[in-house]
Formats: sequence, structure tokens, C-alpha cells
Amino acid sequence: MVEAELSVAFDPADRAREADNPHSLVVRFGMDKPLTLDAGIDLAPFQIGYQTYGTLNAERSNAVLICHALTGDQHVANLHPVTQKPGWWETMVGPGRPIDTERYFVVCPNVVGGCMGTTGPASTNPKTGMPWGLDFPVITIRDIVRAQAMLLDHLGIASLFSMAGGSMGGMQVLQWCASYPRRVFSALPIATSTRHSAQNIAFHEVGRQSVMADPEWRHGRYFAEGTNPRRGLAVARMGNHITYLSDAALHRKFGRRFQDRDNPTFSFDADFQVESYLRHQGVSFVERFDANSYLYLTRAMDYFDLAADYDGVLANAFKDTPTRFCVISFTSDWLFPTSDSRAIVHALNAGGARVSFAEIVTDKGHDAFLLEEPKLFAIVRGFLEGAAKARGLPAARR
Amino acid sequence: MVEAELSVAFDPADRAREADNPHSLVVRFGMDKPLTLDAGIDLAPFQIGYQTYGTLNAERSNAVLICHALTGDQHVANLHPVTQKPGWWETMVGPGRPIDTERYFVVCPNVVGGCMGTTGPASTNPKTGMPWGLDFPVITIRDIVRAQAMLLDHLGIASLFSMAGGSMGGMQVLQWCASYPRRVFSALPIATSTRHSAQNIAFHEVGRQSVMADPEWRHGRYFAEGTNPRRGLAVARMGNHITYLSDAALHRKFGRRFQDRDNPTFSFDADFQVESYLRHQGVSFVERFDANSYLYLTRAMDYFDLAADYDGVLANAFKDTPTRFCVISFTSDWLFPTSDSRAIVHALNAGGARVSFAEIVTDKGHDAFLLEEPKLFAIVRGFLEGAAKARGLPAARR
Repeated sequence: MVEAELSVAFDPADRAREADNPHSLVVRFGMDKPLTLDAGIDLAPFQIGYQTYGTLNAERSNAVLICHALTGDQHVANLHPVTQKPGWWETMVGPGRPIDTERYFVVCPNVVGGCMGTTGPASTNPKTGMPWGLDFPVITIRDIVRAQAMLLDHLGIASLFSMAGGSMGGMQVLQWCASYPRRVFSALPIATSTRHSAQNIAFHEVGRQSVMADPEWRHGRYFAEGTNPRRGLAVARMGNHITYLSDAALHRKFGRRFQDRDNPTFSFDADFQVESYLRHQGVSFVERFDANSYLYLTRAMDYFDLAADYDGVLANAFKDTPTRFCVISFTSDWLFPTSDSRAIVHALNAGGARVSFAEIVTDKGHDAFLLEEPKLFAIVRGFLEGAAKARGLPAARR
Repeated sequence: MVEAELSVAFDPADRAREADNPHSLVVRFGMDKPLTLDAGIDLAPFQIGYQTYGTLNAERSNAVLICHALTGDQHVANLHPVTQKPGWWETMVGPGRPIDTERYFVVCPNVVGGCMGTTGPASTNPKTGMPWGLDFPVITIRDIVRAQAMLLDHLGIASLFSMAGGSMGGMQVLQWCASYPRRVFSALPIATSTRHSAQNIAFHEVGRQSVMADPEWRHGRYFAEGTNPRRGLAVARMGNHITYLSDAALHRKFGRRFQDRDNPTFSFDADFQVESYLRHQGVSFVERFDANSYLYLTRAMDYFDLAADYDGVLANAFKDTPTRFCVISFTSDWLFPTSDSRAIVHALNAGGARVSFAEIVTDKGHDAFLLEEPKLFAIVRGFLEGAAKARGLPAARR
């Protein structure tokens, strides 16, 4: 059972502390600067936890915004304060990397609804002194982006040189380009979509039900009640994790190989390597993520439907956009298949945008955007090089 | 939450009664006729619940064995005694149907490890007077087939005219043809595979963890403790159900349509129709299925690897087989994709078998074999017609 492998040492209070007082930069907005939410609520006060890498140039023209995915956070390229593991995109972001922190000023905020320092359901509700839990308002991708715009205002960045994100991060990129086209010089939406498919909503709903079926969830009040819905959240993560990979990748990595033995045990132990791997994924996720944040952020992704804000005509979201786009998909990604990216490209073309598109051949599935994928790195590097030239940024040192 | 929709009227004791005293025919094998299991255990006494339709002819040459899938049972073509719904394959089996009960004697047994009258974890363990629970030995597809052979011996059927099954039912068909080639005149393995893929094992493992994470599962002793792991089992079913459909079918049926409203509720209610549909699938499954049976039968599917019994050479499983095969797959089935069926066909060809193969174009996914699919019906009817002629059975009445 997953339960047996869950660390007993983990204290949920640690996460609550990280939500309010993160190991990163924080900007706190007071009652005078509320975040206006799509749900019709003004959220105030609220805060944004974020990281920066590199230096903003004198012209303030070299900022790159990184948008993280569902279970990511602001720790793109530094040791993670909870897991002590490397940042989630160190292969992409850093000195000499495709998103080169020696040339660009990289900003990555934790999303609203997250649990790593930006206000979310694990944060303290100032009205009660207790974590928000389900009293936190349901948020949307547009809300997340609106908060990011407030952060950039705070940092004095009127216009981004570029922005990049995969999966839910790509949704934020697309929403930014629709909401604030004049603030984005170039954009990289990766392995993403302008709307979540019925099948993807279905997978998220199973994950949410798994969390909510755990008696320790307590209708979201697990901090107050001293419980932790770790079993439900671990199972949710296991199910979702399958969708981030591909049949071919699972076959290549695990096939039908047994774990530490030659024959079946005729039991419900983790006989197969793939079982053992998945259990580990579930258990390690629970140590770093808040169950309610999982509910809120999956919901935000499900609600995302960019065309719906433009009378169902996606091209109108990007009409006369000045932004240069590079859209990227992966052949084996069945969560956000290439057809989703092609729909983005068609809408951008119809909107008259400058757009290049690359479908990368890989068996790594949706997670390819996070992995060692040299073709991805070369494309991002080349696209940014061209955009830097157009923006008048100094050329890369050779 | 799923919980709110779960019927409070359901009494698990009803299922326990169905496991021992089913609403169907039963054959009970005593201590003198044990079922020898792959786990190295002799199971005795044990029983098989089964249904028959039509009449066995004087030559005993018109019997057709139907093998049910993971969550199926013996009620192929009659009102289900628990759900009061039609049999699960009434479109395929019945008077004038492709598997015509006016011509053929159809037998369908509940599988070993099931919960509808064949001995499984919900059955009473004669040694304790309590349900077996996890004391029930882990079983394999080969064990299921071995028990079916004992049933046919009991019925005096030395040789089957034909047999058919989809998914786990197809695994049984393939195992039968490997274990008892002289007893099978013709066979229809549908939407199946000779071995479960890593991705399929992964989906099953998530389902099992969902059941086992439910505190009401009580390490399988929920009957004795008066509990019922219905939340865990419902979530498991929801996740698996997605894999039985296809992205295209979900899009066609539900798209992003809201349930009984025009706008999002900004809550965790079932906003989308696909969420509501999935919750219903989970809840209704729990009313008719035993959680431990789910564990045992998913395990049996995961262990299935026909080639492994023949030194890794699949063709040897079918060497010089006298059986005529019709292998069928569906274009949108991503659980048992056409490539799995092609592997069967290649092995049969290499073994010198008589084999025809059809890939049916449909967007209905894996579940297509259970649905209204005229091309499937025409192919099964035609194949059986040819086999009946070869077997010397009377022609169909026109």
C-alpha cells in the first residue's frame, strides 16, 4: 500500500509555514491593491512568492517570465527548499542555458492558488487566522495572470522580452498574450492548449474525487483538524502521472519487468517496476504539495477556454497581436496532443501573428518539456536569439 | 463528492449472498475435485456460477463459450439480478443475434475471483465461515480458464464450436486456445492482447491503490467489520472508465458542456457533464461489484503474459493449432490498441493457424466491443456462419 511508504516524519504545518513565509522573494499587496477575481471577489490582502535569476538591464527590456505547470512552483533553477532537489527547469534556465540568465532577467512567480508562497488555500485567511481551505475563492488562469501582471508592475517591468511555460504554464502564456498583448514581445507556449479537453477534465475530476474521498480531507479543513489527506492525494498523483508519460516511454523504462525479483509474488505487493515507480511518485508528491491547491489548480485548468471569452472565435483572442510566437508540441504527448498546438497556430495565423511551430519527435510524452530534450533546447535558444536581435538586445557572448 | 451520491440503501451483505448463492445456475465441486492454481494451491471446494442460453444439440457440437471482461459476469443476455438492467452483451447474444441462441448453446461462467457466484474473495471461506477477503489466493487467467474447462467437463462438452470474449474475456479466449487447442473449433479474441502493457498495469495499480487507500477497506475484511470501501472503489472505476472510452468519444458525448447550467459555478460541484457522467459510473459500479474482486481480477490481467509460458516465443503458444481465429480490434481503442491484435495475428500466422483479422473504424474506444457496432456484429455473424458450415452445423434459417 501507498500508506506504508508515506513518510511519517512529514509535518503538514511545514507546508502551512511555506505558504505564508516562503523560502523565496515575496511581494505583499495590501487592502488597497486587491486582486479582482473572475468569481466576482476582490482578494485582499494577498501575496506573491517568486524567484528571480540574472539582472534586469538598464532599459528594463530583458525580462523573461516563466510560468509553472500544475505542480510546479517558483523554484525554477535553485535547490527546492522543501524537497532539496534541483529546480524543475534547470536544464532550460540558468547561465548558458537556452533561457540564459547571463543575458535575461528571469522571473518566476508561484501561481495564485498554489502552496509555495503565493496566496492559496493553504495560506492563512486574515479574517480567521486559519488556513483558507475551501473558503478560498475558486480561481481561473486569468486570475493567475492578472496577479502576475501586478507583480511585474511592482518590479517596474512594463514589457516582457519573452515568456515561456509548458502545460498549465502554456495556458498562462496564451492568456497573457490575449490579455496584455502589448506587454509581451515574444512568447513560447509549450505542450499546451487554449482549452482543456473532456478527457483531461475527466482525469482531473478523478484526481479531485480521490482527494475528496479521503476521510482525512475533512472538507478541506485538514490543517485545523490535524489530519492530512495524503493517501487520496498520492493516488490522484499516481493517476495523473500516467497521463504525463506515454505508453512507449513506460514500455521502454519498465516493460513488464519485476521489481527486485524474478517471478510474481502472487500478492498485491508492487511486483512490477512500474507499480513501484508510480507509488514513489505519489508518495513524494504528497510531501511537497497541498491537497486543496491540487483541487483549485486542476479546476482552473478545467475552466480554461480562451475562445469562450471571444465569442467562441479563438483568432479574435490574438487579433493584430504584436507578439512573436514559437509554439512547441511533442509527438507522444496525448494529454496536450499536437492537434491542440496546431489549433493555436491556426488561430495565430488567422490573427495575423508572427508564429513558428515545431513538433518534436520523442517518446517521452507530455513530460518531455521538463526533460533532457536537446531539440527543445535548440529551438528555444534559436527563437530567443532571433527575438533578442529584433528587440535590440546585445548578442550572446561566444 | 462521490460520497453524497452513493446510495445509502445498498447493503454489502446482499453481494455476499450473491457470491455464495447466485441468481443463476451453479455447479459445486467438492474436496475430490480441486482447482489447481498457478500460485501452487489447490482450491477446494469451489463453485462456478454460470448461465446458459439455447439448447445443446444431440452431437454436443454447437456450444459457444462466452468469456466476460473485468467487471462483467455470467448475465450476458438476461436481466441482471442485482442492477435489474439488461445483460451486458444482449446486442451480440440472443435469438437471431450474431451469436444466435436459436442455433448455438451459449455458456457463460462467472470467472474465478469474481463476485457473482463463482468462488472469489467475497465467497464464504469454508474453513472460517467468513468471506475469504485477502486470504483468497491470487489467481491468474490460466486459473480462470482451468475452472471453465472443469465446467465444460461437467456439462459434457468435449469440444466448443466457438468462443468469444473482449478485453479480459479475450485473454481467456487466447489462453483457452493455447491450453486446450483440441477443444476449440473456432475463436473470437476481441479488443485484447497476449500481455498487459506497462501503461495498463499502471492504470490498474492506481485503481488498486485507490481501493486500498480507503480506510473502510480494512485490509480486505470489510464484510466482517461492517464497512464498505465504496469511495475508493468508485474512484478506481472512474479512472478506469476513462481508459475504456476515447478522447474523441468523450468530446462527441460531452465536449466542455456544463451540467444543468450555462456558466461555471466556481465551486467543486460537477460543473461539466463529463464529471457528472463519471461520478455516476463510479457510484453505480459500487452497487454491483466487490472491491476485493476488483483487486484480484486486475491482478490476474496484469500477470497475463502468454508468451512467457512458451520461452518468450508467442507463436509457440499456437503451434499447429487446429482452431480457426477471427481477431478483432477497434481503431480508437488505446487500452488494447490494434498493434496488440496485430501481434496476435502475426503469432497465429507463424503458428500456421487459420486466421482472419478485422480492425473496425470507430471513435468509441475500447468499450466499442460492448456497444451498438453494426460492423462488429456483421463480422462475428459472418465468421460463425463460415465456421458452422465447416463444422457441419445446420445452416441458419432465412
